[in-house]
Amino acid sequence: MEREITPIVLREGYEFINDCSESDVIVVGAGPAGLTCAYELAKSDVDVTIVERKLYVGGGMTGGGMLFPAGVIMEETAEVLEEVGVELRPAEAGLLAFNPVEAAIKLANAALEAGARILVGIEVEDVIERRGRVCGVVVNWTAVKAANMHVDPLALEAEYTVDATGHEAAVCKLAGIEVKGEGPMWAERGEELVVKHTQEVKPGLFVAGMAASAVKGAYRMGPIFGGMLESGKKAAEEILERLTE
Amino acid sequence: MEREITPIVLREGYEFINDCSESDVIVVGAGPAGLTCAYELAKSDVDVTIVERKLYVGGGMTGGGMLFPAGVIMEETAEVLEEVGVELRPAEAGLLAFNPVEAAIKLANAALEAGARILVGIEVEDVIERRGRVCGVVVNWTAVKAANMHVDPLALEAEYTVDATGHEAAVCKLAGIEVKGEGPMWAERGEELVVKHTQEVKPGLFVAGMAASAVKGAYRMGPIFGGMLESGKKAAEEILERLTE
Amino acid sequence: MEREITPIVLREGYEFINDCSESDVIVVGAGPAGLTCAYELAKSDVDVTIVERKLYVGGGMTGGGMLFPAGVIMEETAEVLEEVGVELRPAEAGLLAFNPVEAAIKLANAALEAGARILVGIEVEDVIERRGRVCGVVVNWTAVKAANMHVDPLALEAEYTVDATGHEAAVCKLAGIEVKGEGPMWAERGEELVVKHTQEVKPGLFVAGMAASAVKGAYRMGPIFGGMLESGKKAAEEILERLTE
Amino acid sequence: MEREITPIVLREGYEFINDCSESDVIVVGAGPAGLTCAYELAKSDVDVTIVERKLYVGGGMTGGGMLFPAGVIMEETAEVLEEVGVELRPAEAGLLAFNPVEAAIKLANAALEAGARILVGIEVEDVIERRGRVCGVVVNWTAVKAANMHVDPLALEAEYTVDATGHEAAVCKLAGIEVKGEGPMWAERGEELVVKHTQEVKPGLFVAGMAASAVKGAYRMGPIFGGMLESGKKAAEEILERLTE
Amino acid sequence: MEREITPIVLREGYEFINDCSESDVIVVGAGPAGLTCAYELAKSDVDVTIVERKLYVGGGMTGGGMLFPAGVIMEETAEVLEEVGVELRPAEAGLLAFNPVEAAIKLANAALEAGARILVGIEVEDVIERRGRVCGVVVNWTAVKAANMHVDPLALEAEYTVDATGHEAAVCKLAGIEVKGEGPMWAERGEELVVKHTQEVKPGLFVAGMAASAVKGAYRMGPIFGGMLESGKKAAEEILERLTE
Amino acid sequence: MEREITPIVLREGYEFINDCSESDVIVVGAGPAGLTCAYELAKSDVDVTIVERKLYVGGGMTGGGMLFPAGVIMEETAEVLEEVGVELRPAEAGLLAFNPVEAAIKLANAALEAGARILVGIEVEDVIERRGRVCGVVVNWTAVKAANMHVDPLALEAEYTVDATGHEAAVCKLAGIEVKGEGPMWAERGEELVVKHTQEVKPGLFVAGMAASAVKGAYRMGPIFGGMLESGKKAAEEILERLTE
Amino acid sequence: MEREITPIVLREGYEFINDCSESDVIVVGAGPAGLTCAYELAKSDVDVTIVERKLYVGGGMTGGGMLFPAGVIMEETAEVLEEVGVELRPAEAGLLAFNPVEAAIKLANAALEAGARILVGIEVEDVIERRGRVCGVVVNWTAVKAANMHVDPLALEAEYTVDATGHEAAVCKLAGIEVKGEGPMWAERGEELVVKHTQEVKPGLFVAGMAASAVKGAYRMGPIFGGMLESGKKAAEEILERLTE
Amino acid sequence: MEREITPIVLREGYEFINDCSESDVIVVGAGPAGLTCAYELAKSDVDVTIVERKLYVGGGMTGGGMLFPAGVIMEETAEVLEEVGVELRPAEAGLLAFNPVEAAIKLANAALEAGARILVGIEVEDVIERRGRVCGVVVNWTAVKAANMHVDPLALEAEYTVDATGHEAAVCKLAGIEVKGEGPMWAERGEELVVKHTQEVKPGLFVAGMAASAVKGAYRMGPIFGGMLESGKKAAEEILERLTE
Repeated sequence: MEREITPIVLREGYEFINDCSESDVIVVGAGPAGLTCAYELAKSDVDVTIVERKLYVGGGMTGGGMLFPAGVIMEETAEVLEEVGVELRPAEAGLLAFNPVEAAIKLANAALEAGARILVGIEVEDVIERRGRVCGVVVNWTAVKAANMHVDPLALEAEYTVDATGHEAAVCKLAGIEVKGEGPMWAERGEELVVKHTQEVKPGLFVAGMAASAVKGAYRMGPIFGGMLESGKKAAEEILERLTE
Repeated sequence: MEREITPIVLREGYEFINDCSESDVIVVGAGPAGLTCAYELAKSDVDVTIVERKLYVGGGMTGGGMLFPAGVIMEETAEVLEEVGVELRPAEAGLLAFNPVEAAIKLANAALEAGARILVGIEVEDVIERRGRVCGVVVNWTAVKAANMHVDPLALEAEYTVDATGHEAAVCKLAGIEVKGEGPMWAERGEELVVKHTQEVKPGLFVAGMAASAVKGAYRMGPIFGGMLESGKKAAEEILERLTE
Repeated sequence: MEREITPIVLREGYEFINDCSESDVIVVGAGPAGLTCAYELAKSDVDVTIVERKLYVGGGMTGGGMLFPAGVIMEETAEVLEEVGVELRPAEAGLLAFNPVEAAIKLANAALEAGARILVGIEVEDVIERRGRVCGVVVNWTAVKAANMHVDPLALEAEYTVDATGHEAAVCKLAGIEVKGEGPMWAERGEELVVKHTQEVKPGLFVAGMAASAVKGAYRMGPIFGGMLESGKKAAEEILERLTE
Repeated sequence: MEREITPIVLREGYEFINDCSESDVIVVGAGPAGLTCAYELAKSDVDVTIVERKLYVGGGMTGGGMLFPAGVIMEETAEVLEEVGVELRPAEAGLLAFNPVEAAIKLANAALEAGARILVGIEVEDVIERRGRVCGVVVNWTAVKAANMHVDPLALEAEYTVDATGHEAAVCKLAGIEVKGEGPMWAERGEELVVKHTQEVKPGLFVAGMAASAVKGAYRMGPIFGGMLESGKKAAEEILERLTE
Repeated sequence: MEREITPIVLREGYEFINDCSESDVIVVGAGPAGLTCAYELAKSDVDVTIVERKLYVGGGMTGGGMLFPAGVIMEETAEVLEEVGVELRPAEAGLLAFNPVEAAIKLANAALEAGARILVGIEVEDVIERRGRVCGVVVNWTAVKAANMHVDPLALEAEYTVDATGHEAAVCKLAGIEVKGEGPMWAERGEELVVKHTQEVKPGLFVAGMAASAVKGAYRMGPIFGGMLESGKKAAEEILERLTE
Repeated sequence: MEREITPIVLREGYEFINDCSESDVIVVGAGPAGLTCAYELAKSDVDVTIVERKLYVGGGMTGGGMLFPAGVIMEETAEVLEEVGVELRPAEAGLLAFNPVEAAIKLANAALEAGARILVGIEVEDVIERRGRVCGVVVNWTAVKAANMHVDPLALEAEYTVDATGHEAAVCKLAGIEVKGEGPMWAERGEELVVKHTQEVKPGLFVAGMAASAVKGAYRMGPIFGGMLESGKKAAEEILERLTE
Repeated sequence: MEREITPIVLREGYEFINDCSESDVIVVGAGPAGLTCAYELAKSDVDVTIVERKLYVGGGMTGGGMLFPAGVIMEETAEVLEEVGVELRPAEAGLLAFNPVEAAIKLANAALEAGARILVGIEVEDVIERRGRVCGVVVNWTAVKAANMHVDPLALEAEYTVDATGHEAAVCKLAGIEVKGEGPMWAERGEELVVKHTQEVKPGLFVAGMAASAVKGAYRMGPIFGGMLESGKKAAEEILERLTE
Repeated sequence: MEREITPIVLREGYEFINDCSESDVIVVGAGPAGLTCAYELAKSDVDVTIVERKLYVGGGMTGGGMLFPAGVIMEETAEVLEEVGVELRPAEAGLLAFNPVEAAIKLANAALEAGARILVGIEVEDVIERRGRVCGVVVNWTAVKAANMHVDPLALEAEYTVDATGHEAAVCKLAGIEVKGEGPMWAERGEELVVKHTQEVKPGLFVAGMAASAVKGAYRMGPIFGGMLESGKKAAEEILERLTE
């Protein structure tokens, strides 16, 4: 039976990676902002590929706050979580509490159901850039980078690339964008600014979630997630506009 | 707003962990066998907690075969995947192909929907054992173990514990069960034996998935997953019988 | 009995951390300056929380000088040590010798007796900053940082924060204060300057002990501790004034 | 002033180590059992030296249970904690809760007040053994061992040596005693057995605390501390009897 | 142009690995014995795949003796080196000297020219074993193993497998063969014995080169290479016989 | 026989290194550009030494693209590969595909056949520079550097030195040349620019391959190799001109 | 007998370190320059202490050139080696060859015979600096630094300090002197410049050997040692002049 | 001048290593026992090579006792130290104190003066063994082993080999001798037994110093060195007898 399993896995796996080699949008990072962005894009039938460094989705969300398994969200920004079916429990001051593992899985599930591809174990090591426009990402196996082996990368083409890599803003750095780094914590302002700073930072390259805050040096928020999801959604909406222009 | 976020996360997180401190069943490991087992138990209204060492679910499934993002399953063992909504593509020799990231997320989603709790970032460092019966697990933060800090663990009580930790069979080892280790690869036989060896190995302790194969030194299978899911299901069924005796 | 121990520890531990989530003063670092500062504040009924990165108190004091278990102090700065009951042995040139392990334990004991809380195993990863004022610290488990896991922090609010993290001046750096680093050794001048440089470096943020010297690039002193204790005391006195304004 | 500080620290430090080179009793490990044992011995005017591998006292106690800052103790075993002034809060099932950082500091403080010496940063690398009797320990700087440097150790003589190194039972292993290792968790039985197994395991060598459990393979208890303190006390009492024979 | 490069590399690479998934013979290890064995097999039109853990061929040969870039060979065993075009310089006692980098490259070149496939960056983690017969190897990316990632392997089928992994005899160990380890050095006897011990050690599994010596605990030889090449040739000859039976 | 092997290896190895101590040209790095450069020089009877940090040739070529064992080349730049006997398979868009392990071995084989010396396991730690002219390299064992041992290097003299160390441009950095680092990916332009930037960057020092791109911050190309080979060839041609001036 | 050995070693060791706490000159680094400097000073009855980071003398000299156990020296600079009894073998071009292990031991032996103290296992972590004058060094155990433990240092006073720490110029850096770093290799000029740059770089602080070259960015020399020894001698002579002013 | 230095160092270094390739006696380890043994042999005109893993001589002697720079020796065993010129200071109980750095250097100096060769940076990785007789050692660069590179070793022939590698008894282990390991400390008995156990443990292989104690599981002694030196001397005497038989 090994005679069949290996060829099927090689072929199916090859075809999946090959499908990822040209997308409408590549979202780098499968955390809350990236998953939301991909979900919103896929809902509108955009061909979208999420590229994730780890073998797993959820980003920094699943550890809750200091490993306390809970997250909060302001009522007015909870729409996406509600839509994907996360249980929301009312708490003080207009905040809702939820289980962050559940939220990560339901967001990923929604993205997949909507048609997004998730490619895991892949690290972005550069961008493709033609005449000043970002045209996708240059990737390698995370394992190859971790093992410090000298192996050439491959290129994944896309109309638009979204940096949703969190406070590292890794794709922005590779694209030569100045990244000021996360500012100190101020939850209220941080929630507003992460959405405000979600934008196209270079032709072809959008930034969303904590990466957007980090680029501008805006405030960090801790385990409150509404701004992140709104940011992912905003990036999706702006890209949709461009794609349909 | 920090004044509200921290107390809410502390309280909600504390309550969730506290809820996990006494369960009907604790499943150790959120890979394919553990997720299936918890899903089946929760469907029958059993109070079940999954304890996972990483911050993420999926175990060794999400990397496909040698990072080729595909898995296979025999038609006759594909029922669970179908039930949870994984897309299955017919391939050679009665095998079906699927995307393993999708499978992991959908299994986890199903387990959550059915009512299972998933507690991540937690490592089992021992079992509770009273008069020869396993009565739950002794756990610590994965971070504490990784950082090699000297901190006392806590105990999580359960009627039944399921070792679904993969080929390490970590809980079995802690409970003093001899673990022969995975045998060489022979996919056909391996698929049969993993189900056959799924059983109660000590009063209160069941073993499922690759852990079951490892205890008995049975054959390994590679990226074919039907036996794993059947094994998780069988463990659930046997525990259900006991609980309803 | 495990059924009782775990819920009690979870609840009592949760409540203690919750109590720490809002204090009058947070002192970062449980070395000689931090312990003295907290002791002096608590004596005046200020609600004070010490946050310590290690699981232990004493900072760099307990290793004496190059592991030789002894410390020295000038007679005129020995008041605090005497008050907390440390045995002082007269030596040359107006100096007194003492056992540094004893000193660390007695200072910690005095701080606790006076009512200070000590929260260990917690690392400060940022400050809370609203409209330019430091309003507390953003913390995470030391274990999480050491294990390099991706987990969101929590915020601990306070009217005043004291950076008593030693020559790293870690909180000051996070708050964007320029830290010149410890200067070369000159014990006499160092003893004077560490007290002189103890001050509010940003609204809401004080610096004490070697952190104060490091911010200004003042001289280091080696295993002589009077300036450190005086500095902790001075920070406490200045904060008391503000709190009672 | 450096001209005075260095010679004083060298001389005072040298004399303290020299005083430690011959004791009535050497207690290895400054955790709850070791501190209690040394406290009880010193109260009876025995010349006792605690040797601790870290630069800090408290052993595994200060991290509470899974970093939740709380410990519990059965009412009937809480005498020592009460005696040294630890605040005890009644909880369920005849258990009392306390802050473990406070407990560690107060036990250490009591031991010092009673006259015990605490020598930190010192690792035991062997025992002195003459005609089958353990006559003290062979020690080196923890730093030297950590840095993997090739440096000869020194010997510290004592009438009796107490292995209070926790579940490693490090001194017992060096003395050739078979160490079965901690058994699974069973708090009730563990509390009884740790006291029962506290004894002289080889002429001149006693074992106390988790080391006693580990030698016999007895049950572990988690963050409940009465047995540990009773064990330290029992070791002290038995040694006192021998010394006064 | 990236749009073309990535799909071509994915497709051509996939096809090459797929071709390797079923061979007549798999040779594990691209050192002198493995390259010679594959060369001899390919010359006789056997479909042979070399699997090499590193990204490079040559094994332990290219470092010469203690990095002195030279190797020696007895005149009577130099035939293969001569055949592939290595320059041989006469030295004392019937020995010939040569450059070991040149030897490694020329052996690899000859194997390729003869039609062998070389698959690099692949580590064998188990054998396929059906009814006691070794039917190929279970492999994973070396990078995945080095990065300690949890990813399923794939299986490569073959009629015969040759363990040419050097003194580790890694495949033999995985197949449950007792490996005595290299004996002390005795060049004359070692040269004879490595050839003598080249054989089928389990149905379907041959051992060649230092792995053959290691299995039997035979003498090591240092930087003399005739026995290694003879051993590779002998393994090829015996397999050819079987294949043509 | 050991009595003969050791002296022969020492003598032959010593003589080979001694021969390398003075060359017409030293090429640093045995990747595609370096091997091609050395091959072209040796064909014209230039005395050339390749110095390689690893024990193996091939540089970053052998891992293909993301470990997919394939490389591509534009038809118009494939001459060298054809000349050394690499099998080229036509693919889309004027590109040819080939096996990169085969290419590396055949290029190395060709360089050796033409008379180049390859010295492996040697790291360049500085340049020799007299009156502003680079006169060779200062080298040490890679093992010595990796083991962080304090050992003096030796000098290898040459008329011309070629930095073919890939994107690190290690020799250029040591020689004080500003290295801008690889730019983003743009395969077409990258292929042109790597050749264009191949030049003498300081008297006596040429740069070739990705090192040439890195010095100028030109575009990276991924697993397409024509520009690299052309660059190596161009460096050889320019050096030949100088040497024959 | 342990009862006597430990107190003697403690006392004798303490006294030796105490003697080192105030010297005329402290030489940091026991390599060729430092040993020569200390030898020349001690010959003139200066009270000199060598402080060496490792447990051993010889610095980077004993590894010869790339581990080839040989060093060279120009005839005209060989006086010191001859004086201390090193065997010198005439070679080409006015150079003499010698065994570098022998040279290191004989230089150390000569320094000791002349009356210098050598204190090993001690790392300089800062300078003492009063009113802009370097008055000695601040030291700690190398083991403490390697183990990354938080322990206060001690101060060793001296009239003059010599930085003979090799190309790191570690003391100069600590004293705030700009260190340009070793230049490229040019043996002739390097030999001259290392002597020329030997000087007082700050009141109380001299620099000698490769540290002198590194401060000025002068040429490196490889395994030729005359300049190093001359430099050590020159530093000694200049200090002698100052001390006798 | 580089043109001359490199060839001289290569040639002189090659010749020195070549001289070491065949000796009467190889002593492994340049600690007190090994240096004394080589000194005594060389005094009697035996051709002796010391092989030392580090780049430095002195073994574990130079760190004194727990870094306190002092060693002790019984009057009746101090002859060798006196002979080589070490300053001995009378202390309690018939013991003499000395500086261990001085002792190491003077022993090494004496061995060199008597004609012994010292080869540093060389690790023994096996023995040569013909017909059950140890005929020398198989060595590699320490750097190669530390860097975990795959490089063949070389053989150094000798009539007799002395294992003076300290408590590891590394050569004995390689030669298949059972090594019981150092026993607990008992200085008096340890001093006697180390001499008693100095003997030929296999034809051609002697053991001396702590290696002799370790083979037999005899007592350790701490920083008292007479037994070590006597042991080295006894090994030399026994070998001399054999060589002159």
